[in-house]
Amino acid sequence: MQLLNGKETAKVLLDSLEIDVAQRAATGKKVPHLAAILVGNNGASETYVASKVKACNEIGFVSTLIHFEEDVTELKLLEKIEELNEDMDVDGVLVQLPLPEHISEKKVIETIDPSKDVDGFHPVNIGKMTLGEKEAYVSATPYGIMLLLEHHKIETKGKHAVVIGRSHIVGRPMSILLSNNTNPGNCTVTLCHSKTTNLKEICLQADIIVAAIGIPEFVKADMVKEGAVVIDVGITRIKDATKKSGHRLVGDVDFKNVAPKTSFITPVPGGVGPMTIAALMKNTFKACDERN
Amino acid sequence: MQLLNGKETAKVLLDSLEIDVAQRAATGKKVPHLAAILVGNNGASETYVASKVKACNEIGFVSTLIHFEEDVTELKLLEKIEELNEDMDVDGVLVQLPLPEHISEKKVIETIDPSKDVDGFHPVNIGKMTLGEKEAYVSATPYGIMLLLEHHKIETKGKHAVVIGRSHIVGRPMSILLSNNTNPGNCTVTLCHSKTTNLKEICLQADIIVAAIGIPEFVKADMVKEGAVVIDVGITRIKDATKKSGHRLVGDVDFKNVAPKTSFITPVPGGVGPMTIAALMKNTFKACDERN
Repeated sequence: MQLLNGKETAKVLLDSLEIDVAQRAATGKKVPHLAAILVGNNGASETYVASKVKACNEIGFVSTLIHFEEDVTELKLLEKIEELNEDMDVDGVLVQLPLPEHISEKKVIETIDPSKDVDGFHPVNIGKMTLGEKEAYVSATPYGIMLLLEHHKIETKGKHAVVIGRSHIVGRPMSILLSNNTNPGNCTVTLCHSKTTNLKEICLQADIIVAAIGIPEFVKADMVKEGAVVIDVGITRIKDATKKSGHRLVGDVDFKNVAPKTSFITPVPGGVGPMTIAALMKNTFKACDERN
Repeated sequence: MQLLNGKETAKVLLDSLEIDVAQRAATGKKVPHLAAILVGNNGASETYVASKVKACNEIGFVSTLIHFEEDVTELKLLEKIEELNEDMDVDGVLVQLPLPEHISEKKVIETIDPSKDVDGFHPVNIGKMTLGEKEAYVSATPYGIMLLLEHHKIETKGKHAVVIGRSHIVGRPMSILLSNNTNPGNCTVTLCHSKTTNLKEICLQADIIVAAIGIPEFVKADMVKEGAVVIDVGITRIKDATKKSGHRLVGDVDFKNVAPKTSFITPVPGGVGPMTIAALMKNTFKACDERN
């Protein structure tokens, strides 16, 4: 069993981006600028946005954080997005989800200029991703997983990948990316979800499992074939009295029992999570490069 | 075994649309108007476009057929599309594919106003279809298949569907539609393609098979589980000296040997083909209804 260390891989990618940014700067070119919008005081959202801003700062991107109160009107938020769309200095625009209930996430996402949509949530980008078009901005978690597979030279062509979970943000795009005619890619892909009746039987056929259901330790050892590659997208905080903090983070995979059967597995934390940030930074760099 | 008779089903849907159109007309509302563009003299394309225009006429839609010579410039074609986009009387715009090599299909598709894109090929519509948004225009063949399943009340929830072929026009969207949280839908879906290594083994697990590879009689009886539902999207003209015409049309399924094992199967011709026309008409009606 070998760990797919997302923390180390992300560092390699971010170091490489840092050099690319420095080269842009040295040749008088504009450096990437990411604008992030945060609404309200959701603790997790604040942490996520902070880590994105931190990553920008570390590799030489410009970042702008716009923080609205919980009760900001939808109109005001949309106006800010339009302002950022038109701001020639801004390359990437993201709005941290979830949003308060009085604001339509759909409207917000569709207001972002697709060419600045570094989160890859706009229907145009999802459509282009589905069509396998290279110009698409692919959302950060699935893109990060593809980068992790690529970095570790995991053979995917002709393999049977089973994706558990059909969320718009992870499961669905993973199922598409893994089956597109690309490398990584070219898998036979089975997409499973809450209505799947024989999940264990299907998982046992998988050469590659992507677990993205959000249920702690859902994937057990008896669901995994010997030698499979296991990608764990879940991250849930559960109580643990043996820890100083009183909790620990667990994924969607019963890591302790599953890991020994696998050829490669992502740890939680330190697997998919850090790759998400690296993927977002790569999207932002690309947005900057393409508009300048 | 029961035939999924696309010809009959399409007639039911078209008859119903005809009534809806008559009702619009009777209440002084605009009737749907489909504008179709044909380039060059490809025999198959001419036949397809003619059948679309014929369907329009039969159910009371207005239709416009614009026929360009093979050597029309890309610019001229794009200008015509823009003119149709702006024409308030036109509800749906389609450009019959394939196009001559000097014209970019991607540019052409992306020039069509997504709200008039009744073929559902624009990235925005593909993105919305992927996201399961009802406002999406779903391309006619996969939409027609969904209508056929719905009309025959085929239970799909929790079933294992195997889609063979990952084309943008059929296989890929079918895999998405069948796994979305809808009815029909909610299948566990496996998408197979040219890089799949154990196709027979996977097909044998399928409750529903959608064959969309374009290889005559590719799906054999030993690949199909007893009681499966089989949807045959292929249509190829092969030589047959026993026929007056010297040829016959065959699908991607070895119908004669497969049919006895199935619970439901589409014939070729008369299965998916007519449903494609009905789906296009439904999309055009929807486009008219939504803009007026």
